[in-house]
Amino acid sequence: MKNTLKKSKIISFISDFGYQDNWVATCKAVILSIDPQITIIDITHDIDSYNIFGAAFQLAQTARYFPISVHLAVVDPGVGSNRRPIAIASKSGHFLVGPDNGVLSLAAESLGGIEKAVQLTNKKYQLRSVSSTFHGRDLFAPAAAYLANGIKIEELGLPIVKESLQTITIPKLVVESQQIKARVIYKDKFGSLTLNLPSSLNEPFSLADYSSLTVIIENNKFQVPMVSSFSQVGLREPLLLVDSFGWYSLAVNQGSAASYFNIDVGSLVTIKAESSKKRVT
Amino acid sequence: MKNTLKKSKIISFISDFGYQDNWVATCKAVILSIDPQITIIDITHDIDSYNIFGAAFQLAQTARYFPISVHLAVVDPGVGSNRRPIAIASKSGHFLVGPDNGVLSLAAESLGGIEKAVQLTNKKYQLRSVSSTFHGRDLFAPAAAYLANGIKIEELGLPIVKESLQTITIPKLVVESQQIKARVIYKDKFGSLTLNLPSSLNEPFSLADYSSLTVIIENNKFQVPMVSSFSQVGLREPLLLVDSFGWYSLAVNQGSAASYFNIDVGSLVTIKAESSKKRVT
Amino acid sequence: MKNTLKKSKIISFISDFGYQDNWVATCKAVILSIDPQITIIDITHDIDSYNIFGAAFQLAQTARYFPISVHLAVVDPGVGSNRRPIAIASKSGHFLVGPDNGVLSLAAESLGGIEKAVQLTNKKYQLRSVSSTFHGRDLFAPAAAYLANGIKIEELGLPIVKESLQTITIPKLVVESQQIKARVIYKDKFGSLTLNLPSSLNEPFSLADYSSLTVIIENNKFQVPMVSSFSQVGLREPLLLVDSFGWYSLAVNQGSAASYFNIDVGSLVTIKAESSKKRVT
Repeated sequence: MKNTLKKSKIISFISDFGYQDNWVATCKAVILSIDPQITIIDITHDIDSYNIFGAAFQLAQTARYFPISVHLAVVDPGVGSNRRPIAIASKSGHFLVGPDNGVLSLAAESLGGIEKAVQLTNKKYQLRSVSSTFHGRDLFAPAAAYLANGIKIEELGLPIVKESLQTITIPKLVVESQQIKARVIYKDKFGSLTLNLPSSLNEPFSLADYSSLTVIIENNKFQVPMVSSFSQVGLREPLLLVDSFGWYSLAVNQGSAASYFNIDVGSLVTIKAESSKKRVT
Repeated sequence: MKNTLKKSKIISFISDFGYQDNWVATCKAVILSIDPQITIIDITHDIDSYNIFGAAFQLAQTARYFPISVHLAVVDPGVGSNRRPIAIASKSGHFLVGPDNGVLSLAAESLGGIEKAVQLTNKKYQLRSVSSTFHGRDLFAPAAAYLANGIKIEELGLPIVKESLQTITIPKLVVESQQIKARVIYKDKFGSLTLNLPSSLNEPFSLADYSSLTVIIENNKFQVPMVSSFSQVGLREPLLLVDSFGWYSLAVNQGSAASYFNIDVGSLVTIKAESSKKRVT
Repeated sequence: MKNTLKKSKIISFISDFGYQDNWVATCKAVILSIDPQITIIDITHDIDSYNIFGAAFQLAQTARYFPISVHLAVVDPGVGSNRRPIAIASKSGHFLVGPDNGVLSLAAESLGGIEKAVQLTNKKYQLRSVSSTFHGRDLFAPAAAYLANGIKIEELGLPIVKESLQTITIPKLVVESQQIKARVIYKDKFGSLTLNLPSSLNEPFSLADYSSLTVIIENNKFQVPMVSSFSQVGLREPLLLVDSFGWYSLAVNQGSAASYFNIDVGSLVTIKAESSKKRVT
């Protein structure tokens, strides 16, 4: 692991900094000042301001596709308060750096769980002057750079009991006999809607066994085909599928499910199975 | 050629993925997992959703400025259907990777034409599990990475007869005596409008020979100066020039031609030459 | 210095090119054609069209966080006119490349002042054919690449007397007894507003000595707490602080000061100190 990281030296970077200001570049400048051989890959900086869940969810989906890397996540509404700045070593060898507000927690889980965690207390691995408004530049970017450079995580600061770390949770499903009450947890650029339904779900019934399902949104009922790709339904027609990251999603072929169903992140989506729609195998 | 590529290992990347989601980063993560020494340059990911022509046109303009590279283009409304995933070797030594829907065709032409093409059928150079909704990650990014890494294109899959590849065409001009009926084929950030008029056009008359031309849009006539730079007309005044990629364009000095003329991509623009406006040489 | 640059080969890049077109990528392609080992870091390309001050200000804040680098800035409404294309060597060893319209001037100052400047006249370090509309690609990107590659600045063209260079100035403060008339000079993504008040200002009174200050905008008075971090005030409440780059700013905790006060870049903000609000030390 350490050798791989030394060779590749990759930092992924996600934030709510947007693209118009100089914050992303300033963090990158700090990283390259520490080690100009580091490769920095932006995940996105278009996270809605202060949306910790959004960043946590996207980072968790993406991080496992990277070779052993350091993942830097800065959505930090509590900067300057007593929330802790942290670094995490995952069991799979990846590192995570950011504020202890849950933004790292889903990725830590998707990367095999937490091996160890530290609070960024060692001033040796911080900018000389640490502001109380921009820890991305002053604490997190340097910590990420030193980890990519091969410094041991223990060097960065005092150990933290992992049970004390803040966590984010994906809203729980309500499952009833032949009915699932799901929530929209993510809306993508195309308007497709990710539900809090992992593809592994088989209870109370396996969605994949049905050719179509009844979707109830507020008081409206829709019969939506269960397919494996967009092109299996007509243009602008709705569909249910397992998305490429393993979550059931509501989508529209070359259109927006958010517009079609007039819903957004947080909306309730009830899914009912009727035995007449069960696939013949 | 092969040596250059081995040394530089550059992948350019264009898509309609946008900047808010994790798709671009996930493709890059897959590429760096295969070879962390590859440099990835974004062309743009702000192509309008499903706009194959827009991506094809931009890629064709840009690709020839790169050193020998692999160009990855993912605008893929037909993902999961029977459209083929392909890689192309151009005669000039560049490679192109993407869906066979025409998105690669203008660039292939601008890079000297097609030397050979293959369908991405070799599972050895794909992600272990290939989804039916995200071939960017599962097929195209790996193929691009292996090409940048030095794998021969023949390794990626079965050869394709190049005549069978989908192509995109730039709308044809209608040329009449002293009159050209052109179309807007591209609108840039500033609102400048590219016409389907290459600067090489000399028939029925050479635009560059005139100090100004009559531009007819719907029923409105404009006398527009033919210049070589924006600053040759006053602020907010319209102009015709050959843009930096070799196309005649309608523009406005520090303003938007799209707003000035109230037109957009697809609009008809008739250009008439009056002999009294011919430059004295 | 020269050795550092040779080793790191970093170019920062700021422009008003936006993200939808291929201009940024084309400049990067030209750079990598000259030296594929160069690392290019985007500062931002979302500068408002033709906003020279905005780019100059952002570049000046960020440049000093980079290791020795070449900074490429292209906001160039005068392209094709007689404004000069230039390169600057700063006293701290950084280089700056762009049009002589002031866009480089604040950064030159923040990097220690100008050591020497040249006009980009040497055709050997330009694209073979130079357009009159895209000097970013044809002149500035090549000059930046050759500087990063180790070419001496004197090679790029004829020396310029530094006093002849265009400069941009930050609007001057009006300071009166117990009252400062400031201007908003920058609005960030969150709607925080940077004032033309450096944190070093101690006259006529030191803002940091007060627990709150009276802010007058048009005819409205606000009592605004002077704090060191956002979290010291309640959610959606206004505050004054020294931002992370050393400027006094008006902000709102997890909100937009621009919306709260209904002002924007250029607005006048009068700040009054009342002795009753002076901190007890």
